[in-house]
Amino acid sequence: MSISMKDVQNQTLEESFKLTRVGVRNVKKPVDVRRPEKNVTLVVNFDLYVDLPAELKGSHMSRNLEVLSRVIDESVREPVSSLEDLGAKICKELLARHEYATCSEVNMSADYFLERGINGGSKSLERYVLTASAESRRNGQTKKCIGVEVIGMTACPCAMEAVLSLQGKERMAEGGDIAPSITHNQRNITTLSLEVPGDYQLEADELIQIVETSLSSPTHEILKRTDEAKIVLQAHSNPKFVEDVVRDILKVIVERFNDFPDDVKVRVKSESFESIHKHNAYAERDTIMGELRA
Amino acid sequence: MSISMKDVQNQTLEESFKLTRVGVRNVKKPVDVRRPEKNVTLVVNFDLYVDLPAELKGSHMSRNLEVLSRVIDESVREPVSSLEDLGAKICKELLARHEYATCSEVNMSADYFLERGINGGSKSLERYVLTASAESRRNGQTKKCIGVEVIGMTACPCAMEAVLSLQGKERMAEGGDIAPSITHNQRNITTLSLEVPGDYQLEADELIQIVETSLSSPTHEILKRTDEAKIVLQAHSNPKFVEDVVRDILKVIVERFNDFPDDVKVRVKSESFESIHKHNAYAERDTIMGELRA
Amino acid sequence: MSISMKDVQNQTLEESFKLTRVGVRNVKKPVDVRRPEKNVTLVVNFDLYVDLPAELKGSHMSRNLEVLSRVIDESVREPVSSLEDLGAKICKELLARHEYATCSEVNMSADYFLERGINGGSKSLERYVLTASAESRRNGQTKKCIGVEVIGMTACPCAMEAVLSLQGKERMAEGGDIAPSITHNQRNITTLSLEVPGDYQLEADELIQIVETSLSSPTHEILKRTDEAKIVLQAHSNPKFVEDVVRDILKVIVERFNDFPDDVKVRVKSESFESIHKHNAYAERDTIMGELRA
Amino acid sequence: MSISMKDVQNQTLEESFKLTRVGVRNVKKPVDVRRPEKNVTLVVNFDLYVDLPAELKGSHMSRNLEVLSRVIDESVREPVSSLEDLGAKICKELLARHEYATCSEVNMSADYFLERGINGGSKSLERYVLTASAESRRNGQTKKCIGVEVIGMTACPCAMEAVLSLQGKERMAEGGDIAPSITHNQRNITTLSLEVPGDYQLEADELIQIVETSLSSPTHEILKRTDEAKIVLQAHSNPKFVEDVVRDILKVIVERFNDFPDDVKVRVKSESFESIHKHNAYAERDTIMGELRA
Repeated sequence: MSISMKDVQNQTLEESFKLTRVGVRNVKKPVDVRRPEKNVTLVVNFDLYVDLPAELKGSHMSRNLEVLSRVIDESVREPVSSLEDLGAKICKELLARHEYATCSEVNMSADYFLERGINGGSKSLERYVLTASAESRRNGQTKKCIGVEVIGMTACPCAMEAVLSLQGKERMAEGGDIAPSITHNQRNITTLSLEVPGDYQLEADELIQIVETSLSSPTHEILKRTDEAKIVLQAHSNPKFVEDVVRDILKVIVERFNDFPDDVKVRVKSESFESIHKHNAYAERDTIMGELRA
Repeated sequence: MSISMKDVQNQTLEESFKLTRVGVRNVKKPVDVRRPEKNVTLVVNFDLYVDLPAELKGSHMSRNLEVLSRVIDESVREPVSSLEDLGAKICKELLARHEYATCSEVNMSADYFLERGINGGSKSLERYVLTASAESRRNGQTKKCIGVEVIGMTACPCAMEAVLSLQGKERMAEGGDIAPSITHNQRNITTLSLEVPGDYQLEADELIQIVETSLSSPTHEILKRTDEAKIVLQAHSNPKFVEDVVRDILKVIVERFNDFPDDVKVRVKSESFESIHKHNAYAERDTIMGELRA
Repeated sequence: MSISMKDVQNQTLEESFKLTRVGVRNVKKPVDVRRPEKNVTLVVNFDLYVDLPAELKGSHMSRNLEVLSRVIDESVREPVSSLEDLGAKICKELLARHEYATCSEVNMSADYFLERGINGGSKSLERYVLTASAESRRNGQTKKCIGVEVIGMTACPCAMEAVLSLQGKERMAEGGDIAPSITHNQRNITTLSLEVPGDYQLEADELIQIVETSLSSPTHEILKRTDEAKIVLQAHSNPKFVEDVVRDILKVIVERFNDFPDDVKVRVKSESFESIHKHNAYAERDTIMGELRA
Repeated sequence: MSISMKDVQNQTLEESFKLTRVGVRNVKKPVDVRRPEKNVTLVVNFDLYVDLPAELKGSHMSRNLEVLSRVIDESVREPVSSLEDLGAKICKELLARHEYATCSEVNMSADYFLERGINGGSKSLERYVLTASAESRRNGQTKKCIGVEVIGMTACPCAMEAVLSLQGKERMAEGGDIAPSITHNQRNITTLSLEVPGDYQLEADELIQIVETSLSSPTHEILKRTDEAKIVLQAHSNPKFVEDVVRDILKVIVERFNDFPDDVKVRVKSESFESIHKHNAYAERDTIMGELRA
């Protein structure tokens, strides 16, 4: 026998406070995504939230998991075309199921792989991280973002000059490029996140390409010795501060997505795990397209 | 012989972009803090940033480390009274040394310990995390925040009702309190961050107290068996959603700091590492005092 | 023009030291595995090592990546049947390519998902971690292990008695089972790793089943309220120390795999993120089948 | 009224299994250590275990916390001279309090700081990690280890040759040293752990010195530009594989501690966060002094 259960979350409160975000974090699920030229299975980490009005004691958190499960189940029959579209769909469903909420939010991240190589050299499957997010407001629009996290290499332009100076050398021109010379270089992680307006189909692979070409050099899992030397020389011909990496990405974004509205969000972060220091060097721009075009 | 070194960071750029944050992350230093009743040595993790104008190629990051080192050296002769005051001092020095910057920012965190125990029971040194941050604008004021991260225990009020219902039991009053009955409970991490206006001296120990009394129960490293039973019963007499934890903290904050200006920032986050789920439950309020009083 | 490159790794050393493990860590690749009833794509983290004799300056680390890449490429045409078989194959190839090495070692881990639910309740996709490892000796056999990491729930038997005692209650029998009563309970992570002899086909799903049934209760991502109450009561009817969890797994392992040779390695670890403490409770048995049968 | 409490842990079992390690993990406490020239406060993370015989249901884990608390309390009056001595003391007390255990084990780690600088340059407080461990057997001796974790820099000797070759250059002698030329370099973390025989007083600072001088270069938090150039050139005059780092440390250990008994444990690990790859390069030697002298 079971007596009627008290609906604890639905209790009404007086003189309480609304909450900005209530939900679940660290939910992992495999998701099939249909890309233009391939289907990929991503293992996605999800955080899902809605807001909560002051008068309601609790959010029905199990609904977040039910929404996620149903939307992902549907994606087996009808694969989603992108993580950010999946996020937008989940946000709308969250508002439908949490009738008391005025907004919903989803954050996602997943490992992602692309075949890469240098001209004439070995190819290998390189790893990246895809991120995506979406936000919905009741009676309003749904905003969605896509992002990429790329591991690459930076070579320090400042130490390069200081080393030349200490060696009593002048920098020599080598064609139009900088003649490579000795400096410290290191692993760098750069992330680019971009709002995706309306039904625009933005390819994560293109964002990865933009980030990789803005570093001193991309990195590779498999390199023959000559290719390793080429990569090292390329990075030393192309020394970059984290500041340079962020700005070079912004420059491409402004040109490539010049039809994007002014209020579209752009965020670029670059962090170098400095080889000569125990701390990291970091640069960031958090802005909107309109500001970048100003 | 050393020829004159090119000042790479000071190169001027055309048609570039300003940057929101440029600096160093993950710098650890020991800091002596003079508290009202004791001196403590904290091992503090620092992130330090300034902004960078569009026309300047690079920020002089080594200045961040020099500022940090000098301010901490001074603190040996004249101990700082709080982490947030240390942050404010660093922010001002960052603006002084980075003459091109319009704002500076410092984020700090450190393990922190307090002796705790239950009445008549064993005492033990419990661990917490202190956080602090500061932001300065040139020709403007310096804002500073202090925060605490507390590990505690939440017992679920919803599962408690569901279990009673499944057992065919009615909840019995036990004095004025809730009669404790079976539910799931778990480790919870709750953080409270509060802006500190002007010269107000805010005690982190008081914030820890506020958070601990808002959980179903604080946790203890050493408990005799009877004390363990008391703690378990206390948590079961006091079941809380993460939503309840956040709101109960907000309630105390509004009352206790009712003289704080309207624009003072308040942020409370509570995350339960659910014992019956693989994911976490989460609630957050990110607001200002004026909103809370509305 | 390129002059002949010095083969740095092949330089011979005098009066140096052999090395136990030389290789690469933190290599991630997607791998397709053909299971009896389904194919799954796993995102696998690999660490790969060989030993290095005293007289050789360096190990050719790029060969590790080439081996990994080729073995995984082959798995697209001919899917591997298990992670541990993939590991064994990689270990043999590592010895073939590193002609100077006497042994090789591979460690792998990957997120893994299974549909789970309670009788008559909702199903949901639950997450686990698969681990696998392999070791080869030249002129010797290849050993391989498979393992699982399971998130579940433990309810404390000791606090349950202490609470009953404090309440002045006697434990009542309820059928043959323990009558559930109040205690602290928490998230627990338990791992089981088992050596797989010869061509034995061991199912990870079965190991997951063994671990889940040894906890106070498995956990679920989606639970209707009545099901949540059932899970909570089940855990409270089945209170377990981490010691109990490890021993109950060992008991099943000894019975279920009683045909395994004496030298087969078994390792079980259980860690509870105690709800009443800030620290974790931990128990472990690291042994071989022969010891367990003694 | 409280009826007598059942002693759950002391229940005796039949046909059960002994356990290798039972205890608590992730306990943090501040500890005052008296070094020859200074006193330091360390924030130490402790893991504490004993074994458990087959016939006993549970280990009394609260005793581990009581032992830790008392030993640390005593250290306020009488500071410990080293982390490993603290560990040995805790191990003996664990055996005294867990009368059923045959062995005990303690693992510790803590951030640690030393003032460092290059000749004539700025000094800064550099961070390291101290580790220590101890093991006791009943009726037997207590063994203790001390270890250090050092962040430094490695420059790749193999890519240096490949770059010279691709540039069509021959390596030039520069005095007796290697003439520095372009290569990739990166952050490296190297750990050295050494058993401490009997009452030998081993200084962690000396172990840090041994590790730092075995890297291509140590790293520094504050560097003037000329000093940065010196450090970069030093690393490029001293290119090292992770294999070289481990062996150069072993060489110094064998010479410096040539009076240590044959069975003294030595473990050296070096991991480079490769700037041209997304994975890490790793080398390790896990051995005893007798093997190194063979």
